[in-house]
Amino acid sequence: MRITALAGGVGGARFVRGLLHELREVRGDTDSEVVVIGNTGDDITLFGLRICPDLDTILYTLGGVVDEGQGWGRVGDSHTVQQELADLGALPQWFGLGDRDFATHIARSQWLGQGQSLSEVTTRLAQRWRLPEQGVRLLPATDTPIETHVVLDDGDQGERAVHFQQWWVQMQAAVPARRFTVAGLAQAPPAPGVLDALRTADVILLPPSNPVVSIGIILGIPGLRDALRGSRAPVVGVSPIIGGAPVRGHADACLATLDVEVSAAGVAGLYADFLDGWLVDDADAGSMSGTRPTVRSLDLRMRDVAGAARIAGAALDLSADLSAPRTA
Amino acid sequence: MRITALAGGVGGARFVRGLLHELREVRGDTDSEVVVIGNTGDDITLFGLRICPDLDTILYTLGGVVDEGQGWGRVGDSHTVQQELADLGALPQWFGLGDRDFATHIARSQWLGQGQSLSEVTTRLAQRWRLPEQGVRLLPATDTPIETHVVLDDGDQGERAVHFQQWWVQMQAAVPARRFTVAGLAQAPPAPGVLDALRTADVILLPPSNPVVSIGIILGIPGLRDALRGSRAPVVGVSPIIGGAPVRGHADACLATLDVEVSAAGVAGLYADFLDGWLVDDADAGSMSGTRPTVRSLDLRMRDVAGAARIAGAALDLSADLSAPRTA
Repeated sequence: MRITALAGGVGGARFVRGLLHELREVRGDTDSEVVVIGNTGDDITLFGLRICPDLDTILYTLGGVVDEGQGWGRVGDSHTVQQELADLGALPQWFGLGDRDFATHIARSQWLGQGQSLSEVTTRLAQRWRLPEQGVRLLPATDTPIETHVVLDDGDQGERAVHFQQWWVQMQAAVPARRFTVAGLAQAPPAPGVLDALRTADVILLPPSNPVVSIGIILGIPGLRDALRGSRAPVVGVSPIIGGAPVRGHADACLATLDVEVSAAGVAGLYADFLDGWLVDDADAGSMSGTRPTVRSLDLRMRDVAGAARIAGAALDLSADLSAPRTA
Repeated sequence: MRITALAGGVGGARFVRGLLHELREVRGDTDSEVVVIGNTGDDITLFGLRICPDLDTILYTLGGVVDEGQGWGRVGDSHTVQQELADLGALPQWFGLGDRDFATHIARSQWLGQGQSLSEVTTRLAQRWRLPEQGVRLLPATDTPIETHVVLDDGDQGERAVHFQQWWVQMQAAVPARRFTVAGLAQAPPAPGVLDALRTADVILLPPSNPVVSIGIILGIPGLRDALRGSRAPVVGVSPIIGGAPVRGHADACLATLDVEVSAAGVAGLYADFLDGWLVDDADAGSMSGTRPTVRSLDLRMRDVAGAARIAGAALDLSADLSAPRTA
């Protein structure tokens, strides 16, 4: 079976880890291949180093070295470099980077500077974290650098734009965003293998990632959305909203910017043109109407790997049911 | 008094630290300004980061944070980033970089990337290490990137060139060098303030730095050597060779490449066109002939700060004697 998943950061990474657990441990399926198309829309250059937060979170999570408490970064990492940079007055200081994490960004920047594509760099990093051994290929959505900017109301001054990470991390998304703009998105072709992974997939999954600034960015890559619309595989998603609140992160603030209701139904509406199946939390069981997508409810809180595996298993089950030839 | 010193790495840094001790502590001279013109000929880009080993050694030494044992790098530094880069397969791995040291290179590379000159970057780093408070200005010899390459005999293959650091650090200068070439040197103008510091100096000092790959590179900057030849201040040097062997480093291998005798006299010959005073070790007291430069001998081993101060004091004394109006 070929499974292709779109993924943002922490939610996507935990879902994919659960999916692998479900496949390999629960179902004894050692053959299925998993392709993860990772969001690069919140990539940022800090201290002259290229940082891909979502790709790294997936790598570290699948590599078993993620800081589980915060969901990103390396477990037990030290912060010598960051402290020293602060002492040197190097800016900014609002983005937390551990020493082992710094090494990833240094290596990535070096390799990119040598002319390797982000796909090639990501493949090298994936080897370090044994993704091939786990039957996983991680593809950046695009090799072309894109950057999400957040346009803020600046009162009498009109508007001002900040990098997404500044809004997300430094401002904690507490300043209302008027809109998001993604520099370079319209000219960013899908990375090699991305469209093929969607076209040839037996199952396409949308983890409970941020529908605006993670999945939404990936969907904005030219050709991506069309590939989902035209896919032979059913597209099954997991709601990132439970009972009107995001499971994690600031998806509520992002949805508010788009004037979309912060609900499982609101998010499903963003995917209406290609979504075949939709998993919602039991709390939202009665909130969806209409015949498409096919909705199932369950406990959507990913408390641990087993919990994430259970949700991924439900997504696979729903996909199988949607794929089955209809009996008259 | 305005004192200008040319300096390489460890030897130059220790000499300047001794000079400051002699001025401030021994002589109670709080007014004299010291300008250090630092060698940039062994600068190297590793992991995409710009590294200036000699400038950093001076900064760390004067900042009181140098690893005294090895003479360079930060005392008590950890090596988390380097280990992680090794695990990622990032190359090269023969150049030791601590975490705090990495922060220096990251900040420098970031600032250079923002368009600041190496002089400006060095000034920022010097503020971190309180050089202005010590009455010291550190100037890179040039702001233009230059790189010293070492041409090696490659047997049947002819010749091959490696970066100076690879020859010095990885090969420990054990492979005979046919010659040194400094890429960009002829087109590298002196950094702002360098020629002025030589023209307006009351004293010009040459610490016991490597005469070929440290002082020799600085002298190759267009206009530098002429400024020394035409200086109103006497030029007083300290021999880096004691009894036929370098005090430190591989100066013997460098001199051999130039077919210059590994001796105090041999090095003085390299400076013959501008050298007014020359301090040699007592072991070499009888080895110099001729009337110029004026030679004095003393114990030239810099065992500690006080020892370096004593040598610097002797250099100042010789300079004063050379500057004094001749009595008939």
